[in-house]
Amino acid sequence: MKALVLSSGGVDSTTALALAVEKYGSENVVALSVSYGQKHDKELRAAEAVAGYYGVEQKFLDLSRIFEYSDCSLLARSTEEIPEESYAEQLEHRAGEAPVSTYVPFRNGLFLASAASMALSLGCGVIYYGAHADDSAGCAYPDCSPQFNDAMNEAIYQGSGRQLRIEAPFVNMNKAEVVKTGLGLGVPYELTWSCYEGGEEPCGKCGTCIDRAAAFAANGVEDPALLGRV
Amino acid sequence: MKALVLSSGGVDSTTALALAVEKYGSENVVALSVSYGQKHDKELRAAEAVAGYYGVEQKFLDLSRIFEYSDCSLLARSTEEIPEESYAEQLEHRAGEAPVSTYVPFRNGLFLASAASMALSLGCGVIYYGAHADDSAGCAYPDCSPQFNDAMNEAIYQGSGRQLRIEAPFVNMNKAEVVKTGLGLGVPYELTWSCYEGGEEPCGKCGTCIDRAAAFAANGVEDPALLGRV
Repeated sequence: MKALVLSSGGVDSTTALALAVEKYGSENVVALSVSYGQKHDKELRAAEAVAGYYGVEQKFLDLSRIFEYSDCSLLARSTEEIPEESYAEQLEHRAGEAPVSTYVPFRNGLFLASAASMALSLGCGVIYYGAHADDSAGCAYPDCSPQFNDAMNEAIYQGSGRQLRIEAPFVNMNKAEVVKTGLGLGVPYELTWSCYEGGEEPCGKCGTCIDRAAAFAANGVEDPALLGRV
Repeated sequence: MKALVLSSGGVDSTTALALAVEKYGSENVVALSVSYGQKHDKELRAAEAVAGYYGVEQKFLDLSRIFEYSDCSLLARSTEEIPEESYAEQLEHRAGEAPVSTYVPFRNGLFLASAASMALSLGCGVIYYGAHADDSAGCAYPDCSPQFNDAMNEAIYQGSGRQLRIEAPFVNMNKAEVVKTGLGLGVPYELTWSCYEGGEEPCGKCGTCIDRAAAFAANGVEDPALLGRV
């Protein structure tokens, strides 16, 4: 069987890629990285480096047109500032149950649906992606939740004529557990990129930099992307 | 509330558009038409004419890159012939439970996911689409089935932070019942286009021409698109 892995060049999806390669072999894994109008292309370059490391085929897809009406702060066309808080702090500060300002509308749903169309054409029977429990906590990113994942898995299974399913190995893990899994697999985290800003080096201040550093710290190691910086 | 309608310019989605306009008013309806590498653009021009008739906003989206690896016979890059049979005949002639050759891999899933992303950005609370029971019969188009629709609705509801849902008013109707609904609403079927071929006039021979003519005949009227031709 072949597997298609949604690869963003970050910690979670790179660990998912490592799991897929371990199970199916690099010759049976295709990495798919999506542009959605991000403020920079650091993630895509990181994804490419990771695919090169594992020797898997790398495909790219540009879906930025779909988000051209969104005011999500991650998008190049947005005038909103990217918050300098961890997700937990953003959750505390926002009103009610609305997703955080870095929620790209139904991004994971769209990525999985696109991946499903491509996976069926490429003869893949499973799609891996790296959603984890920290991202869905408090409805920050509702398209990372187990409820969403279960429904989307069923939609893809039924809508593909029962040829394809989703594997979300971290949907009930926190980020520290994802990193623990990856450290065990020898994942080359020094190649990954998580920072929402597109500077030369990770900013160390945005939600994803903070949470990433904490996940490594919880495992007693320094984040290789921030080595010598913080 | 605002509604986004997936509009292909054909009978089913145009009838869904008519229902949405009746319920929400034309000023609260946005039509979305998707290019996916069709062999012709007749459908998109028909969708545009229908939107003009109803006075609703019309948006277009090009997703053809996603299907570039598919060998579906509907796509411009395919060398497969479009079958000259009704769906019922195609189902009889195919082996096993595989979708028919005109199944575009996970097309409805991808269209709905794209529509969900755009609907959230545009402030819509519901997506209408025209899937009906004839299309899902015998797993011909598994992404038209009630099972798919239920799961995709749940995925979009959960993945949007419970802000958005799907309305598939025909999912348990056959095409003749869809046409009956539309005739009652005065739908301008003469503006619609269904034929898989891109000729000056509908071919009258492909699966969709045959099934469309039969749906009108079952209501005792002639298909306005084929008037004077068959």
